[in-house]
Amino acid sequence: MKENDYLLLTTGPVPVSEEVRKIFSEQVLYHRSADFIEAFEHVVVGLKYLFQTENDVLPLTASGTGAMEAAVSNFFSPGDKVIVVSSGKFSERWREICQRFKLEVNEIALDWGKSITGEHLLREIAATPDLKGIFLTHCETSTGALTDLGKIIPTIRPHTDALIIVDAISSIPTMPFKMDVWGIDVAVTASQKGLGLPPGMAFVAVNSRAWIAAELAELPRYYLDLTKYRQAQRLKIGSAFTPAVPHIMAAKVILDKISGQTLPAIWREREAIAAFFRTELNKRNIFIFPQHPSNSLTVLDFQHSGEANQIIDRLKNEHHIIVSRGQAKLQNKIIRVGHLVNIGKNELQKFLEALDDVLIAHQ
Amino acid sequence: MKENDYLLLTTGPVPVSEEVRKIFSEQVLYHRSADFIEAFEHVVVGLKYLFQTENDVLPLTASGTGAMEAAVSNFFSPGDKVIVVSSGKFSERWREICQRFKLEVNEIALDWGKSITGEHLLREIAATPDLKGIFLTHCETSTGALTDLGKIIPTIRPHTDALIIVDAISSIPTMPFKMDVWGIDVAVTASQKGLGLPPGMAFVAVNSRAWIAAELAELPRYYLDLTKYRQAQRLKIGSAFTPAVPHIMAAKVILDKISGQTLPAIWREREAIAAFFRTELNKRNIFIFPQHPSNSLTVLDFQHSGEANQIIDRLKNEHHIIVSRGQAKLQNKIIRVGHLVNIGKNELQKFLEALDDVLIAHQ
Repeated sequence: MKENDYLLLTTGPVPVSEEVRKIFSEQVLYHRSADFIEAFEHVVVGLKYLFQTENDVLPLTASGTGAMEAAVSNFFSPGDKVIVVSSGKFSERWREICQRFKLEVNEIALDWGKSITGEHLLREIAATPDLKGIFLTHCETSTGALTDLGKIIPTIRPHTDALIIVDAISSIPTMPFKMDVWGIDVAVTASQKGLGLPPGMAFVAVNSRAWIAAELAELPRYYLDLTKYRQAQRLKIGSAFTPAVPHIMAAKVILDKISGQTLPAIWREREAIAAFFRTELNKRNIFIFPQHPSNSLTVLDFQHSGEANQIIDRLKNEHHIIVSRGQAKLQNKIIRVGHLVNIGKNELQKFLEALDDVLIAHQ
Repeated sequence: MKENDYLLLTTGPVPVSEEVRKIFSEQVLYHRSADFIEAFEHVVVGLKYLFQTENDVLPLTASGTGAMEAAVSNFFSPGDKVIVVSSGKFSERWREICQRFKLEVNEIALDWGKSITGEHLLREIAATPDLKGIFLTHCETSTGALTDLGKIIPTIRPHTDALIIVDAISSIPTMPFKMDVWGIDVAVTASQKGLGLPPGMAFVAVNSRAWIAAELAELPRYYLDLTKYRQAQRLKIGSAFTPAVPHIMAAKVILDKISGQTLPAIWREREAIAAFFRTELNKRNIFIFPQHPSNSLTVLDFQHSGEANQIIDRLKNEHHIIVSRGQAKLQNKIIRVGHLVNIGKNELQKFLEALDDVLIAHQ
C-alpha cells in the first residue's frame, strides 16, 4: 500500500477531492491566455467572498510562509514597533519574520495552547507607543488553539491605528472569518488547508489602510511585492509572475462550491464534525490540549503518557492513518488530527477505532 | 475548442506530457511522509545532474523570479557592488531586483538581442573595484539570445572573486549548462520551461563560495532564506516549508528520464529541432532576431512589418496555435516560438504551415 492511499488526517496538506485531482491532470493553460485570465479573475472574486472582504486579494505562488513574509515586508520599515502574540510554532514564526526584517518586536508570549484576551492585548497596546502593527494567529496549527478575533479585534480597533495582520492559514474557510466586519487590515491563507487544494499557493488580502502603509514601507521586496500583483490584476493580465496554473484552475471550482454551499453552512458542518469527534474523545477520557480549540483540528493531550509518537507510528504502520506529531516543545506530547475539509465523521470514526485498538494494546 | 487544447508554442509554460499530468492527478502525499521525503531526495540528486553540479540544489515553491530574488537576497549586503549584464526584459529584472535590495549596480546594457563577450565583461570587471557579484542571463527569453557562458566564464573567472550568478530559467536542460566546470557560483531555473512541468516551482543551485558569502550577507530574507532549505535537506525532512507536492512527484519522473536519456542527447535533439525550424524560416526569408540564438526558442524578426501581434492573433484564432508576443520595446515587432521540450518537428511544421497561410492572406 502506497502512502498516498493512507487516510490523511494531518493538519495540511489535506486529502484532495477527485474533482480537484481531475483538474490537476488537465493540460496547462498559457498564463496570459484569455481562458486563464478569466479563471484567474473568477478566483479573485471567490477569494473576496472567502476572506469576507471587498478589498484586494492577491494569489502568490508560495507556501503560507511566503504570504506571511509578504505581510511583513510590504507594510513596514526597519525599526517599526510591532506586537506579536505568540502561543505556538506558527505564531512564533511571525516574530521570527519580523525580527529578520529588523522590526522592533514586543512579543506577548503565552503558554502554548492558550489564547489571548482583548483586555490583555489592550494593555500591551497602551504600553507600546508608536505601535505600527499587531500580528495575530487565528488558528495556531501547532496547538489547535483559536484566537477569538470576532471579539478581540472590535475591542482593540478603536484604541489603535496599528495595522492588524492575521495568519488565517488553517482557519479559512473552516472557521468564521470576517475581514472587513472585524476590521482586519491584512490576512493570509494557503491552498493546502481548508480549501482542499494541493500545497503551492498562498493568498494575501489587503485593505486600503494597509495599501497606504505600503507606500511608506521601506523594507525591500520584489517577488513578494504586493503592488506588482495588484497592478497585474488592474491591467487584467492575471498574476505579476507566472502562477501555478493548476492551482488556479482548481481554486476556481472549489471557490464556486464554497459560494454555493455558503460559508455559514461550512462553518456549521465543521463545528458539528469537531463536536462529534470531541464527544467521542471525551467518552474515552482523552483531553483536548488547547484552552479554546479551533474546529480545524483536534489536538489530543498525551502529556501524561509521553508516548504520543509511538501511538502515531502505530496508527500509521498498523492502521494506515497519518496524523500530525507535536512540534518543538510539544514533541511526543500531543497528537494532532486535522479535519479542515474533506474529512467527515466516517474518517474520524475510523481514526477512533484505530486509536482504541492501539491504546488497548498499549495498556 | 478550449484553449488548453490549442498547440502551445509559447516560451513557457510548455505543454505538459500525459505522464506528468497523470502524476498531478494522484492523491497528495503528506510532505513529511517517508514516501515523499524519499521522492524529494531523489529529485535533489536529479537536480544536481541537471545543473551539472556536486553542490546543493534547493527546490523553492515560487516562480523563477522568486529564485532570482533568492540569488540576490542570500548573498549580498546593501551597497555591495555588482555588475548586471542586460539585453532584454528578464536580464533587466536582475537589475531591478538588485536595485530594490539596494545593491550598487553597474549595468552593462546591451541592445536587446545582443550577447556579451568575455572581453567586454573583463573591461567592466577591471573598472569596478570591490566587485561582489556578476549577474548573467544564459538564455534571454524576451529576445531568444544566448550568452556563451562556456566561453565567457572561464575567461573572467581567473580575474575576479565576485560571485557569478546565472539565470538559466529557459536554458536548462535545453542548452548545455555546466555549473561546476564553468565556475558558476549560483544558478536558478524553473519548473515550467525545459523540464516540462507546470509552473509553480523554481530551483537554486549554490556552491561553497556562495555559502560563505551567505554567512556575511545582511539583506533580510526568511521565506527565501536558502540556509533553511539546506538545513531541511541535511535533517532529511525534505523542504523547509510545505512544498508543491505534485511538482516534486512529477519532477522525480522527469529527472529520471533526463538522466536516462542523458543531457548531451537532449542538447543534440534540441539543436536539431532548432536547426530544422530555422532552415525552414530561412527558406521563407524570415530572419531570426537575436545575434546568437538559443535552441530554447526562435524569435522571428517582424520589425519591418509592424504587424507581429496581428499575425499572432490570427495564428491563435484561425489555427489554434499560441505563441508569445514581443515584450516592452519589442512589442508588435517579433514572434517568439518556444521549443524547449515536448515540441518536435511535427509541431513546428504545423506552425510553419499556419504561418504560411496567415502571411499569404496578409499580402
